[in-house]
Amino acid sequence: MLSVKAISDVIDAEISKIQLDKEPKGLYEPISYSLSLGGKRMRPLLCLASCAIFSDDIQRAVPSAMALEMFHNFTLLHDDVMDNASIRRNKPTVAAKYGANTAILSGDEMIIEAYRLLASTDTPFFSLIMDTFNEMATGVCEGQQYDMDFETRNNVTVEEYMEMIRLKTSVLVAAAMKIGAIIGGCTGEEAKALYDYGINIGLSFQLQDDLLDTYGNEATFGKAIGGDIMENKKTYLLITALRNADPMQKKELMRWLEMENPDRQQKIDAVRAIYDATGARRAAEMKIEEYYVRANAIMKRMDIIADAKRFFFDFSDNMLKRNR
Amino acid sequence: MLSVKAISDVIDAEISKIQLDKEPKGLYEPISYSLSLGGKRMRPLLCLASCAIFSDDIQRAVPSAMALEMFHNFTLLHDDVMDNASIRRNKPTVAAKYGANTAILSGDEMIIEAYRLLASTDTPFFSLIMDTFNEMATGVCEGQQYDMDFETRNNVTVEEYMEMIRLKTSVLVAAAMKIGAIIGGCTGEEAKALYDYGINIGLSFQLQDDLLDTYGNEATFGKAIGGDIMENKKTYLLITALRNADPMQKKELMRWLEMENPDRQQKIDAVRAIYDATGARRAAEMKIEEYYVRANAIMKRMDIIADAKRFFFDFSDNMLKRNR
Repeated sequence: MLSVKAISDVIDAEISKIQLDKEPKGLYEPISYSLSLGGKRMRPLLCLASCAIFSDDIQRAVPSAMALEMFHNFTLLHDDVMDNASIRRNKPTVAAKYGANTAILSGDEMIIEAYRLLASTDTPFFSLIMDTFNEMATGVCEGQQYDMDFETRNNVTVEEYMEMIRLKTSVLVAAAMKIGAIIGGCTGEEAKALYDYGINIGLSFQLQDDLLDTYGNEATFGKAIGGDIMENKKTYLLITALRNADPMQKKELMRWLEMENPDRQQKIDAVRAIYDATGARRAAEMKIEEYYVRANAIMKRMDIIADAKRFFFDFSDNMLKRNR
Repeated sequence: MLSVKAISDVIDAEISKIQLDKEPKGLYEPISYSLSLGGKRMRPLLCLASCAIFSDDIQRAVPSAMALEMFHNFTLLHDDVMDNASIRRNKPTVAAKYGANTAILSGDEMIIEAYRLLASTDTPFFSLIMDTFNEMATGVCEGQQYDMDFETRNNVTVEEYMEMIRLKTSVLVAAAMKIGAIIGGCTGEEAKALYDYGINIGLSFQLQDDLLDTYGNEATFGKAIGGDIMENKKTYLLITALRNADPMQKKELMRWLEMENPDRQQKIDAVRAIYDATGARRAAEMKIEEYYVRANAIMKRMDIIADAKRFFFDFSDNMLKRNR
């Protein structure tokens, strides 16, 4: 019934319909550029698939699915300004191509466009999807704030890190599924279950993303491998390595964290070796598996058609197998 | 019946009720700071006053009025990042006090808070106020984009300048009035008339603001006088002076525009003198009067109680007399 290909075709067609060929070009062209960079379109895909569980008419969820993709792309524009990032999806970021001010203002307009798309959804449950969207949007901002706060803190715990990625990443995945399902006509209980599924699978995806940043393949990952290590980013890997390290390992790790202008490849190789030796890599892999199993358990318990469940099992399997 | 004092008290009470004492402080504290800086609260005031024309229950418009103030304050946070501005309302800007990244992210959250407030408005006309708000919000972004585009253009016309300030400033004033009136229960024709009033009075206020930036009093204006002149900002005054200048005046004006590291007071005095001599100042004063008269003519034609009209006449008189 459901297929990633069929839903992706709907999404691609809709994205190409968004009219951004207007004045002032300085505002709208960067939005087109951002949307044209592609990406996995995971959020609209999960939104439409969640709608499809409960309704044959997934077209009704399309404006909301587009709103979620637009909002996600806004976060990329602003995050790239804040992180001073120049490459994303193997292309220059909006900030790098058009300048920081453009990335700020076009990003602002993307938030507004997201709300405009959301408001154009034909549904009797508008106030519910608006509330869900707002809660998600605030969560994403809070997550980004925690992420920035962690940069200057040396005592970030695994629990704090998990809460940060829950906010920064998972609530958007979860809200996409909940909003799609609501538009499809699900019950309150089903909305809650799909939201929880989204939170858990989102955590799994994000931990996987962190792992790929350190151990992945550059061509398929879309940016340079080892970025997190070079920035001393407090990822699950680093936090766990610091916690698990014996005194010698800790001393060695701190030496790399504090070194000014280290050789890039040397630092990446050395820190990776410590992640391996301290069991941080293994711990991350187990954590990914843990949330994946938890998400699937929620899906299994749901009283929905087997085809729909199969879609989500396959989708998450593919996401977690990618690039390994 | 209506009084600025009474409405302002409602607004101040509501702003103090907005709960921002939460985590992460790095996200919410700058929002509190921004709202605490005060300002004229012109947009919520005009929103509630417009509601009061048609209904005794202005409380129903309060969430939307707060949404408009929140949105306005968001624009200040982001504009100050883009303009690298350090002082506003005689206090450090959020960008100067907390850093550019904080101003970006807290500003983003303010857009979301604005939509949350708007969505909490108890009105049967929600989709109408949402459309009005979205159109306004996009207009404001387009206006800011034109303003930035003008920085690198030397052929900006008066018409283009007026369109820029219409978008950047007036549509927010106009939308505030329209949204308040809709919540109060006005007809479509009345909504349109009040919107047009808001556009015209907003243009008048913005031209007045430009005039004060050059000829005002620093203490009451809230920032250094002459900022526009020092930045060669393409204001109504500069565009008109360039258009009206005779060859000698134009040569003198261009000399000041192109001078590197001019003495601040010398440049301000010299350019002011050219604005006086070319009639640019007088033209700006006449233009302010023109939009003021046009706005009042719209108000006079409206079939609403005299007290309400009096409120808007008095309000605009006070705005235009301030600081002269």
